[in-house]
Parts: sequence; structure tokens; C-alpha cells
Amino acid sequence: MQAHVIRLPMAHPGDLSALDRILAEGLIRADGIVAVIGKTEGNGGVNDFTRGYFTQSLMALLSRKRGQPQDDLIKQIPCVLSGGTEGVLSPHYVVLSRSGVTATTRSDHAALAIGTAMSPPLAAEHVGRKAHVLSVADAVRAAMDQAHIEHAGDVHFVQVKCPCITSVRAEAAKARGQSVVTSDANRSMAFARAAGAFGVALALGEIEPGKVSDAALLQDFDVFSSCASVSSGVEVDANEVIVLGNSRYWSGPLQIAHRPMADALDIGAVVAMLGDLGIEANPQVAERDRSRLHGVFVKCEPDRRGQVRGHRHTMLDDTDINAQRHVRGALGGLVAGVIGDSRIFVSGGAEHQGPDGGGLIAAIAERASVSGGG
Amino acid sequence: MQAHVIRLPMAHPGDLSALDRILAEGLIRADGIVAVIGKTEGNGGVNDFTRGYFTQSLMALLSRKRGQPQDDLIKQIPCVLSGGTEGVLSPHYVVLSRSGVTATTRSDHAALAIGTAMSPPLAAEHVGRKAHVLSVADAVRAAMDQAHIEHAGDVHFVQVKCPCITSVRAEAAKARGQSVVTSDANRSMAFARAAGAFGVALALGEIEPGKVSDAALLQDFDVFSSCASVSSGVEVDANEVIVLGNSRYWSGPLQIAHRPMADALDIGAVVAMLGDLGIEANPQVAERDRSRLHGVFVKCEPDRRGQVRGHRHTMLDDTDINAQRHVRGALGGLVAGVIGDSRIFVSGGAEHQGPDGGGLIAAIAERASVSGGG
Amino acid sequence: MQAHVIRLPMAHPGDLSALDRILAEGLIRADGIVAVIGKTEGNGGVNDFTRGYFTQSLMALLSRKRGQPQDDLIKQIPCVLSGGTEGVLSPHYVVLSRSGVTATTRSDHAALAIGTAMSPPLAAEHVGRKAHVLSVADAVRAAMDQAHIEHAGDVHFVQVKCPCITSVRAEAAKARGQSVVTSDANRSMAFARAAGAFGVALALGEIEPGKVSDAALLQDFDVFSSCASVSSGVEVDANEVIVLGNSRYWSGPLQIAHRPMADALDIGAVVAMLGDLGIEANPQVAERDRSRLHGVFVKCEPDRRGQVRGHRHTMLDDTDINAQRHVRGALGGLVAGVIGDSRIFVSGGAEHQGPDGGGLIAAIAERASVSGGG
Amino acid sequence: MQAHVIRLPMAHPGDLSALDRILAEGLIRADGIVAVIGKTEGNGGVNDFTRGYFTQSLMALLSRKRGQPQDDLIKQIPCVLSGGTEGVLSPHYVVLSRSGVTATTRSDHAALAIGTAMSPPLAAEHVGRKAHVLSVADAVRAAMDQAHIEHAGDVHFVQVKCPCITSVRAEAAKARGQSVVTSDANRSMAFARAAGAFGVALALGEIEPGKVSDAALLQDFDVFSSCASVSSGVEVDANEVIVLGNSRYWSGPLQIAHRPMADALDIGAVVAMLGDLGIEANPQVAERDRSRLHGVFVKCEPDRRGQVRGHRHTMLDDTDINAQRHVRGALGGLVAGVIGDSRIFVSGGAEHQGPDGGGLIAAIAERASVSGGG
Repeated sequence: MQAHVIRLPMAHPGDLSALDRILAEGLIRADGIVAVIGKTEGNGGVNDFTRGYFTQSLMALLSRKRGQPQDDLIKQIPCVLSGGTEGVLSPHYVVLSRSGVTATTRSDHAALAIGTAMSPPLAAEHVGRKAHVLSVADAVRAAMDQAHIEHAGDVHFVQVKCPCITSVRAEAAKARGQSVVTSDANRSMAFARAAGAFGVALALGEIEPGKVSDAALLQDFDVFSSCASVSSGVEVDANEVIVLGNSRYWSGPLQIAHRPMADALDIGAVVAMLGDLGIEANPQVAERDRSRLHGVFVKCEPDRRGQVRGHRHTMLDDTDINAQRHVRGALGGLVAGVIGDSRIFVSGGAEHQGPDGGGLIAAIAERASVSGGG
Repeated sequence: MQAHVIRLPMAHPGDLSALDRILAEGLIRADGIVAVIGKTEGNGGVNDFTRGYFTQSLMALLSRKRGQPQDDLIKQIPCVLSGGTEGVLSPHYVVLSRSGVTATTRSDHAALAIGTAMSPPLAAEHVGRKAHVLSVADAVRAAMDQAHIEHAGDVHFVQVKCPCITSVRAEAAKARGQSVVTSDANRSMAFARAAGAFGVALALGEIEPGKVSDAALLQDFDVFSSCASVSSGVEVDANEVIVLGNSRYWSGPLQIAHRPMADALDIGAVVAMLGDLGIEANPQVAERDRSRLHGVFVKCEPDRRGQVRGHRHTMLDDTDINAQRHVRGALGGLVAGVIGDSRIFVSGGAEHQGPDGGGLIAAIAERASVSGGG
Repeated sequence: MQAHVIRLPMAHPGDLSALDRILAEGLIRADGIVAVIGKTEGNGGVNDFTRGYFTQSLMALLSRKRGQPQDDLIKQIPCVLSGGTEGVLSPHYVVLSRSGVTATTRSDHAALAIGTAMSPPLAAEHVGRKAHVLSVADAVRAAMDQAHIEHAGDVHFVQVKCPCITSVRAEAAKARGQSVVTSDANRSMAFARAAGAFGVALALGEIEPGKVSDAALLQDFDVFSSCASVSSGVEVDANEVIVLGNSRYWSGPLQIAHRPMADALDIGAVVAMLGDLGIEANPQVAERDRSRLHGVFVKCEPDRRGQVRGHRHTMLDDTDINAQRHVRGALGGLVAGVIGDSRIFVSGGAEHQGPDGGGLIAAIAERASVSGGG
Repeated sequence: MQAHVIRLPMAHPGDLSALDRILAEGLIRADGIVAVIGKTEGNGGVNDFTRGYFTQSLMALLSRKRGQPQDDLIKQIPCVLSGGTEGVLSPHYVVLSRSGVTATTRSDHAALAIGTAMSPPLAAEHVGRKAHVLSVADAVRAAMDQAHIEHAGDVHFVQVKCPCITSVRAEAAKARGQSVVTSDANRSMAFARAAGAFGVALALGEIEPGKVSDAALLQDFDVFSSCASVSSGVEVDANEVIVLGNSRYWSGPLQIAHRPMADALDIGAVVAMLGDLGIEANPQVAERDRSRLHGVFVKCEPDRRGQVRGHRHTMLDDTDINAQRHVRGALGGLVAGVIGDSRIFVSGGAEHQGPDGGGLIAAIAERASVSGGG
């Protein structure tokens, strides 16, 4: 079994022409596609419809190519999009696919492994609460099994997309006699992300089951997963999970690495993570190494204490620009500068994902020996 | 003559308490203050009143301390503010002051030199046109003379603040029978910045006088100044100029350096500029060197061709967030990450300031021998 | 021939479920649908993808129902969407359809008549220029012919959707050696709307052909059409035209009326227009009359002189919120208050559409005798 | 004792030139000024510094005119500003002043009466909680006493400005070992407004003391005051209260009236309130009556149930534009259209101020006989 990772541009959120071409050329097979992770140029908030637009367009394309109904595909293929290409960030999507059959024995080299899972639909009254955590944890375990990743330590990036609570959904829950954790839609996205991160941490053994409670979400920030990246959006009603790691049951030139980021200025983590992949940045990744990188993923967060290294920031007090948009733009600028490429997946809302006020960075790269020729 | 540079925080745009304390402690003298450059937490656009608020508060404080009327001070002391602390950027201001008397002979070491000048008020019909260019050039020359900087090559940073055209000013000009270059206020700020940059380039000999025309502004982007940083705002009606360079007529431990930035990902320029000051960033400036830095200034620009290194950006097509806010956040994230400090002056609108799609970076630092050892 | 007008809600820009239901119930026939006018909850600017998302969803539905390829439908059925449901405005769409055959003789009563047309694709270098005007005028004449509206005076509302110039399109034009009227995307939408309005005015005889020139667009605001409503958006590359009027060749209970609005406070025009339809608002339309209204259309504009009736407004100097968003919210609040219903199509950018600083209002209503009595 | 009400324009938030002129002309006396209510062109959110800028400028002017230190004035004269001039709204301020001496007996006619009060500073941990309610109630009672308004029924408008919780203040409270009701700054403004409204309702006997609890704030929306208008902002640390009513101990031509608004489309309440003042709007106030109006005050709220009269609105799910900005623009458009004047004080955030989803409207006008006749 081999994982393939292709990064493609879009001219607008409904533009899947690049994937259409790739499929026509036969570079990857439509029925091998297992997940898509992308950045669209919306606002990343509750009313960001670029995610739904992209997803609809993707599923229409795959439906034609695979001869399956869109409604089936949407339940099989996680399409996790983060809205918001602030600053230099470039709208793009990473197509994850598989080919070959599962190896029955381990090889010498671990290679990139991909697993996916979808939870059952989650009612609005469960969003951002313990039931949400457990639902995500179950899905993460299922995805790890599917990927033949035996140890939690071999997992480097878990992307989760969770539903949130719009005012319409909140009213519906109330009509059913249920309460919701918040009726503020943006706030509900934060609770959903927190629940997703707890779910990943629980599945990977980063926290003990006894520590999971409604009260800890968005409160106890010492609890976090070091490789969870959770988004929340109006366009899903179930939890979608993508697990990326390295496994000796998989083959091919790709590997993945990750590092936690201590804060929004932690350029050291970026450089160290690249070093894990055998790539130097001094101060920028050289052209020949840049082409070895097939996907870069960042999760970040405006420090809730209002300061970055002792100096006041204004992200949390801004009524004009959402705080997540601010921090995505800053981290996007930093990481794109180090990599020399603006196709960076930067997602805000890193509650319980990496250290408080920080986040994490991960990347998928070809091994040097492979591209170098040896 | 010695230049002093102190960087201070503000809790809000009307908060001058840090300067008040510094003056009370006698660290610098109120009557030695010659200019202030700062970043306030407004939107950086036409309706950014944080600049006016800060200026009013500053002048009220200095009026009390110096016993001069505010109206006089405002004509003597350029207070150049860039609104917008997007992303990690921290609201702060850099107070430039002088002490001692002018040396009559050159010393061995060049040290930071400061000169300032104010043009006469500029009518709305001249904003963004050739008359504007000539007005700025005259002011730059006056400021260089004042600073005893003999060669254009010793100038490293010229900060200019130009008036713009609000709808009220446009109507007034029309009532006088005059046309304005544009009645779109945000557009007028771009024209004003272009005129300012041409004025600096003209004064420093970077372009020939024959190349200055109304038509070249915002059109011929091969023309640029490599050390102009121009802002435009509703709160001024004249051009305010601050020239910073190194001169052997000045003494003290401070020096200034600058580098053009080729594009928004040019981390190499940041590291090289720090190298000019004897400061290493590998990948981040070390704690002990960070304290040697007293001011970092960046000018940048969303690439008008819609791409950064071949990948589409969305800054120019965004109706929700102004393009300059986008690019300030990205560059702020990058430079703050390299320096390890979020008190970076990042100003957008770099038309004709640095290469097209790029900009410039400058910093003031103590010499290593001074802080390291003496 | 009879016109049908149905106003439907959407839960999000990809939600066509209401139309799906209506078609399933047989209330109107899918192959009778000739145009759709709607308001989606985007920002109404260049990066408003809610329009493309809705259109894609609509065409997918109609393709299923009519058995025609989407690519054909998109060239047959104008789908004119205005993004931006500021304030109380409710996302909705008005489906215009026809049934029966064309009458060969005039009846006693004029009834609502609908005609549509599409121009050939318009290159970016023609957008906002004279060629654009002529293209729109041709399409308006074609739509009038189709609707059997003989006199320009019987036309009450002409909805036009024009292409604009994104940065990508501008670069493409430059690569072809062509210049564009502006490379500022938002500005290009204004030029496109101006060209559309001139086109309508030309077709309806509101201006003489000699007055049409590049120079008059966005300059000579004494030139306007009293019943043009022009939008511009990134999602179209040709001019789409819908002509609504009253004609004795059509039957049925519906009629249309319109009035110019002198300024953004012109509540009198709203009440007078309702009066033309036999509906009283004192101060609000009564419940029983409200149900007679099937569509309300407003076009408006922030006064470019910066004042409304002598008092300064701030719409044009706001860097946080686009001016058109401001004015749509204000007019939406006013008209929704008079009608008692927030499903109002309010479109900004009324350059040359109604008097300078004002706009126009139109509505489609059933005749009183019909609903009152039958 | 006679109340004077003068409505003045501002060119920007630091522009007090109109008041300066009025004082120079002697139309009112500087030492008679007791309160100012105004709309400035900020965003109305946590980072709206236009309010602080205006207040600083006002106090500087009054300090010069009255020969009192600014620090004293700021504790004596409530200056309640609402940021946000969305749509047609015009930045302006209403200066409330008094002349003459208190009558010892009642006259035949009740005339406008003004009372003010300031609470002690309120710590961040009390903001939005029961202690906040009681603090406001005490201040309202003190202001009523000062105004010689005997019956709660004679009070028509109570303007309160409450402090909120910025991230800096929240951190400070936590450092003191105290918890805050929320560390989300915008959310804290909502809690503060709720506490203010409960305080007014308590003082006016609209609710029973037993119903006041932390839990009821922002939860039990059946509790509301019919004449409270509460703002919250970063620029105050105490509750500022202005009580406006009619009293027979006061003389002069001015009177005040108010009506609750059932929802955002309640044009009937606007017309009825005008009727209470003897002013007809059919559909718009006539020119001669318009000049009798000296101040119009609206408080409104995006309906938290997500609908206006059964149709979905998008205000609460918008990440680009704050919900209060949306609703102010809509109500501003409606009321300005009825009055024919865009100088309307419209303040959002009407939690517990008027019916849920609605708000209130009040106006001060000269009696008809006075202006009409001679």
C-alpha cells in the first residue's frame, strides 16, 4: 500500500479543474482518493460557504469519475477545508490517495500511512460536550486501525472536522427540548474544536479518560493533543477524521513529521520539523528541497492571555477582523517565509491543539535519497 | 550630537503613560524629542482615527512637559503613525530624540543621525501628483541637511507621512474649481504614497528629475526608492519627513541598516539586514542580541500581479479585509518570528518603495561591542 | 402567456430545497423557468462566492429536472444574484416562469411580461467601456422583443448582470496586450455597472446614442436609467439581461410598478410605488396586502458627495465595511419596515441607475380584485 | 430650571469645533452642560477608540471653557457615545444643558427634565453580574432625584454607559484571584448591557428585586426595561447614567416621549412616538416639524432567534460584520427615512432593553404651539 499526496491550486472555491486534469492524465486514480485537505478563500467563520461550495464541486467531479452518487461519496471521503487565506496564503488543496494492497509484513522503512473515518451525525445539543469527545475518539481509533498504524507515537497529524451550532440548529435543538452549549455560532466552533482535540488526545493516550468532562473544554488548557488539528464548520453534521502517520506496512518515498509550536513566534519549531524530514532552512528552504515538500500543515491560536512574549497583541479585542483570521495571516507569513512557498494549510482555532497560545506544524516530504537520485 | 531611540508600549491609542514615566525619570529630555514613529491599533485606512487620537495625546503630554502650545508642537515634531496591528503585531511607538551639540568634525565611527522636516500644507488637488513629489523632495533634502548626512548612500530610512483625499476634502477642492486625482479615499492614499516615494527617490538621486510625472505614479513600478517608507492619512495636511541614516558627525552606540525585500517571502533580506548590524538569526535572534534592537521598520505591499512566487494570493480581491491589512499581518508574522519580538513597525502601501511586490526592512541597533562589553 | 413569480427561502447559498419541493408539487414547471433573481448572504464583492455556489446548485437541480446539461442551462437562464443580506435582509430568491402560449391579440389588461437575453462573452478589456454599453443595449432590445413589450414606457425593471475584472482577468488581458479600465477589482465592478446602466438607458431611449462614451461612465451622473438595476460579479463572463414590464399580450393577476428614489431617505417613493399597485402603507402594508406582493426590488447607492440631505455619512470612507454593504443595510431596513417583510432584493452600486445618490424601487404584486375576490 | 438640547455635527471624532462655536456665541453656557450623548464613526466594539478620542477632545474643550481640570470634568459630565454610523447614520452629538434654578412648585406643563449620576468604579469581576445591577440602580435613583422626577412613569429614556472586560482587564482580575463573567471582550459588553438594563428596570420598578440574579442576565429575556438604553465600552470604568423625563418642576418648550419597538420592522412604533409629540409622519415628517426635533434615540437588537417575522436573517452568523453593526444600519435606515434626517442615535446591544428582538425609540421635541406660533 502506498500513499500519494498531490497539492493543487484552485482559481476559486468551485474550481476543481486541476484535479480533473490530474485524473484525466492518470497520475492518480479517482477511486484511490481517500481524503482532501484544503484552504479556501472564505472567512473561516460560520458564514464561510466556500467550504461547502468546494465540497459540492469536488463531489460532483468524483461522482462523474467514479460513477457513484454524490451522497455516498460525501460519507466516504473526508473533505476537510479551512477557510481563510489571509495574507500571503494561497488557496490550494491536498489530495490524499492510496494505491496497491496492504502489506502483510513490515518493511524496513516506515512510509506515510493514511486512515480515515466518519462518526455518526452529531446532534447540536452534543456539540462541544463530552459526547462529542467520545465520538471523535472512536473515529480516530477506527482511522488508525484502517491505516495499520500500531503505535500512537507513529501518528503525526490528525485532522478532524466537526459540526458547529448555527442559530438555525440551535433553534431546532431548543424545539426538541435540548439545550446547546452556546447559541453564539462562533463560540460553538471553539467548543467543537476543543471537543475534537480532546477526542484525539483520548484516542492517542495523551490524556486519561477520567480527565474528559464538559467542564474541562475551553477551560483546562494544560490538556492538549500534540498532533490534533481540528476545524469546525457549518457544512458538516458528523465528525470527519483523517489520521496521518508513518507505518512499516506502507511503502513509497513519503514521510511525515510534526512539532508542537510554543507560541506564534516559534520559528524554531518550523525549522526543527523540517530537520526531522532532512530539509534545511537557512534561512529559507532551498529550491531543490522545496519541491520535496508535498503538504505543510499549521495549527495556531491567538494567545488568550492577550500577549505574545510579553507584548500586547490586539487579535482578541478586534471587532472588525476575527481573531482567527489575524493569527492565520501571521503564521502563514512566518511559515511561508521559511518554506519559500505560500501554499501552507494554516488553520486557526487551536484550542487544546498544541500548547496554550501555540499550536503545531506538520509536513509531508519525499525522502532526500529518493528525489536526490540514489 | 547623539541620537536616542526608545521603544514604548501603549495600552490604547490615547495611552502615553510610558513616555510620561520615561520623561519623569529623566531618561530622555522632553525638549530633545524630534520625532515619533509608531503603530496604533486602527485599521490603517481613511477612517483610522487612532492616529489622530495618539497624536493629540502625545502633543498634550509634550505641551505640558515643554510648556509650548500644542499647535506649535504639531508643526515641529513629525509623529508618523501606521495604523493596523494585524496578527501578532504589538502597538508601540519609537521616540527619537537628540542630545548634545553638533560636532564640527567627523569622528571615526558613523552613528545614527536623525533629521526632520515638514512641508507647507498640501491642497487636495495636489495630492498624488507631481507637485506632491516636489514638495516631498524638498522636505527630504531639508531633513538631510539638518541631520548632517552628506551622502545619499548614508541614508537608510526615510519615513514620510502624506495627506490624503477624504470625500470632504474632495468636495472642497471641487468647490474651488479644482479636480482631484481620485475621489476614492483609499485610492487617494495610494497616490499619496506613490508621490511620497517619488519625492524620496528624487531627493536621494535614485531617479532623474525628468522621470517625474503625474503619469508615472502608480504606473511605472520600475521606479522606486530603496529606503522610502511612506504612509498617508487623514490626520495630516502637510508632508512630514523623518530621515534616518549614519553620520560621522554624530556619536553614540546606535547604527541603522536597511535592505530591500524582493517579495513578501524574502526572509533572506531580514537576516541579511540583521547581519549588517552584526546580529545573527539562526533561525531567531538570540535573547541577548534582541535587546540590542531598538526599532524595526518594514514596508510591504500585496503583489499587484496577484501572485507570490507563482501562487495566487487573495489580498487584492477581498471585500472584507483591506489588502494592506492582509500584507501587514503576513510580514509582521514573518519578521516578528525572525526577531522573536512582535514590536515591529510594519506599514503597508509600499508603492514605489522597494521592488514591485516587495518592500524594505530597516532596523536600529546598538553596536555589539557597546552592549557586549564595554 | 402568463408570468409566474414565486419567492423562496434558502437556508444557505447551496440550498435549493424549496424550489425542489415546489417543482415536485407541480406548482410551476421546471421547463417554464426563465430567470431567477435572488439575494445571497455573501459580501457582494469580488470575493463573494455565494453567487457561484447558488448558481451551481440551481443549475444542478434544473439539469436533473429538465434533463439538460448544466452548461446549456447556464447559457439559457439568467440567474442574477446580489450578494449581501446586511441588516434585516433575508436570503431569498424569486423564480420567474412562464406558461401558456403567446397571445396573438392584446387583452384589456396589461399583465406582467418577462423577457430574457444573454450577450456574447465580454473580454476584460471591454468591461466598463463603450463596447460594454452597446453589448448590453443589444441584449435589452432582444429581451423586450421576446417579452412582446412594445413601448419602452411599459418596461419597469431591467435587471442586468455584468462581468467584472478580477486580478486574474486583468493579468490575462495584459498578457494579450490589452489594457483594462482599472485593475482594482471593486472599481471594475462600478465601471461594469455604469456600462450596464448606460446600455439599458440606450435601449429604452432614455439617452441619445451620441451621449455614450467611455468618458461619461462614472463621470456624468446626470445620465441615468430610471429602471435599470445592474449587478456585477466574478461569476459571469457575459451580460445577462432580464426585462420586466406590463404587456397586453400577457395574462394573469400580476403587475409591476416602479419609482425612482431621490435619495436614501426617500420613503415617499416606496409608498408611491406601492400606491401604483393599489397597496396602502400607513405606515406599514397591512397583512392581507403583504401577501399580494411577490417580489420587491431596490437599487441604491451611497451618495458620492458624502452627505445625505446635508448631513455627513461615513459610508465612502470606511475601510472596514464596503460602502455598498452599508447602503444595502440602510435601504433594506427602510423598505422592509414599510412592507413589513424582510425579503427585499436590495442591490448596491446604483451608478447611473436612478438619480445620483438615489436609486429605484420596483415591485410585483397581484391585482387587488384578484386576491380580494375570486 | 430649563433644559436645553442642541444637536451638533462632527467632521471626525476629535472635532468639537461646532460646540466651540456655540459656546463662543453664547447660545448655551459651558458650565450649564450636564451630559453629552453622541454617535461616533467607530465600529462600536471593544476596539472602538473614537469614543475615547471624542471624550478626550470634549473634556479638553470644556476644561478650557470652564477652567476646571479634565480629570474632574470626566467624573461630572456623562459623555455617552455609541460607536458605529452604519449606513446613512450621521456622526453627531447631543449636548444636554440646564439653565435657571429649580422651581419650588409645579407648573401646569411638564417639560423636559435631565438628571445625571455616576457610580463608583466597577471592578472587572463585577461587570455583568448582580453587583453591577445594583450599582446601576443606585445611580438611576440618584439621577431621578437630581432631576426632580417623582414618578417612574415620567421617565422616558435612561442612558447608561457601563464598563466592559478587555483581555487586559480580565488578566488583571485573574491576577487578583477573581473570576470574570467571560473573557471574551465582545461577550462582556453584552453582559454589561444586560446588567445596566436590569439596573434601570429595578430602579423604575419594572421588575421586583427578587428577580435580579446573575443567572437571569442574558437568559430571561421576558425581563426588560421599556426605557433603558445601555452602552458598554472600554473607555469607562464606572457606570454613567443620564435620566431624561418630563417634570412640572422644569420649564421650557421641550418634551420627551418614547415607545417600545416590537421588532426591527416596527415602523408603527416610530410613527406612534412621533404622534405622542404631536408630529405627523405621512410617510415622512414634514420639513417644518423636522426642525422641532432635537434628538432621536433608538435602541435595537438583532433577534437572537435568527428570524425577523418568520424570515431568516444573517446578522448573528456573520464573521465579517458584527451583528450590532448590521442592526444599527437597518434601524438607522428605517428611522432616518421616517424622520427625513440621518442624525439618529442608534445603539445596538438592546439586551433586556425593550422586548426581545426589538428595542425602543425616544425623541425630544419642541411643543408645536411654541414653534408654530408665536
